[in-house]
Amino acid sequence: MEAGKLFSEQDAALLEEIILNRRDVRGNRFCTDKPVADEVIDKLITAALNAPSVGFSQPWEFVIIKDEAVKLKVKQSFTEENQKAVNLFEDSRQAEYNRLKLEGIIEAPVNMAVFYKPSAGPVLGQTSMSEVGQYSVVCAIQNMWLMARALNIGMGWVSILDPHKVKNILRAPQQNQLIAYLCIGYVDKFLTRPELDILQWEKRKVRDSVIFHDQYGGQ
Amino acid sequence: MEAGKLFSEQDAALLEEIILNRRDVRGNRFCTDKPVADEVIDKLITAALNAPSVGFSQPWEFVIIKDEAVKLKVKQSFTEENQKAVNLFEDSRQAEYNRLKLEGIIEAPVNMAVFYKPSAGPVLGQTSMSEVGQYSVVCAIQNMWLMARALNIGMGWVSILDPHKVKNILRAPQQNQLIAYLCIGYVDKFLTRPELDILQWEKRKVRDSVIFHDQYGGQ
Repeated sequence: MEAGKLFSEQDAALLEEIILNRRDVRGNRFCTDKPVADEVIDKLITAALNAPSVGFSQPWEFVIIKDEAVKLKVKQSFTEENQKAVNLFEDSRQAEYNRLKLEGIIEAPVNMAVFYKPSAGPVLGQTSMSEVGQYSVVCAIQNMWLMARALNIGMGWVSILDPHKVKNILRAPQQNQLIAYLCIGYVDKFLTRPELDILQWEKRKVRDSVIFHDQYGGQ
Repeated sequence: MEAGKLFSEQDAALLEEIILNRRDVRGNRFCTDKPVADEVIDKLITAALNAPSVGFSQPWEFVIIKDEAVKLKVKQSFTEENQKAVNLFEDSRQAEYNRLKLEGIIEAPVNMAVFYKPSAGPVLGQTSMSEVGQYSVVCAIQNMWLMARALNIGMGWVSILDPHKVKNILRAPQQNQLIAYLCIGYVDKFLTRPELDILQWEKRKVRDSVIFHDQYGGQ
C-alpha cells in the first residue's frame, strides 16, 4: 500500500452504480419492524470519520437516536415547520405538497443528528472561507449516505426542522450547529429514480446547462 | 431494477476501501505532464449530478478550467489569502505552515470551480434551513471526490481563496456562491494517511469522543 491502492475500471463502475442507486428515503418506505444492528451503524460512522475535513479538523459530532420520546419531540418540530412551509408555495402546489411524505422520523428505527463543532483556534484552510468547516461535515454525511446504500439501508435527510429546537431537544452545546437530521433503516424497496422526479415536482436539469468552460459564458 | 439494486457485502467493502483511500491532493503530488481525458471529467460530472439535492433542486454549476491565464489569476488570490492566513497561527507553527504545499492550481491539469445557484422560488425542504442548498452542492463534490479516487485520479479542495475575486475572475453571476475550487489530475502516488496526520499538524480524534446516544451526555 506504499503508493496507495489502484482501483480497477470495474471498481469505478461499481461506485457509479452505488451513486446512481442512492435515494432519499422517507417514512413511506422504511421497514419499521426490522432493526438496524449496531455494527451497521458503526460502518456508517467509519465512512463518516474518513471523510475529508478542512485542515484535518474533523469538526463533526454524531448523536445516534433510538429513544421514541426524543423522536417524538423532533417530529413535533417537523410538523410545526412543515405547516409554515406549505404556505410558501403557490396555491396550485399546496395540495400536492401536503400529499408528500417528507420525513421518516418515527418510522425509521434509527435517527442521527449530525453537528458541526467549531474548533477553538484557527484551522488550516478555514481562514478565508469559514463555511468549509460545515462543508466538511456534509462530506461525512454523503459518505454515510453512500455506505448506507451499499449496505442496502435507506437514509433520508430531514431539513424541515427548527435547528434551535432540535439543539435544545438533544441538549447540544451552544457553539454546535445542526447540519443534518437523518433517518436510517431498511426499506421495502429503493425507488429507481428520485421521488420528486417521478412525481414531476421538479425536472432533471439538462446536463449542458450547468457546465461551463474556463469561465461563465464559455459553454 | 423494479425494487432497486441489492448490493453485496463485497460491494460495501469496496466502497469502504475507496473511502479509506481517498486523499486531499496538493501540487507536490500531481503529474503535470499527464492530461486528464474529457471522458474522465464526464464521469466526475455524472457522479456530481446524481448527488442528493434538497427538493431535487440540483442547485449546482461547474466551471471546468484548463486555461493557464485563468489558473494564474486564481493562484494569485491563493497567494494573497495564504500570506494573511499564516499570521493567524501561533509563532511556533508559522514556519511549519509555510513549509506546507496547500494547493495544486498550476500543477493540476484541470481545475474546477463549483458554484451554488439559488433557485428563483421556494424550494421544498429548504424553507427552514436555507443552507441546505449549499450543502447539496457539497454532496455533489464529495461524490466527485470518491469517483476521482476510484478512477485513480487525485483531487484537492482549495479553500484559501477570496471567493469574490474568484467569482470575478470566472465572471460568475452575482447571485451564485463559490462553494469549492478543485484541482484534479493524476498523481505520482496517493498517501496512505492524510498528509496533515502524517506531519502531525493535527491528530486523529478518538472515535468515542464524537459519538453520543439519544442526546448529548449520552455517551
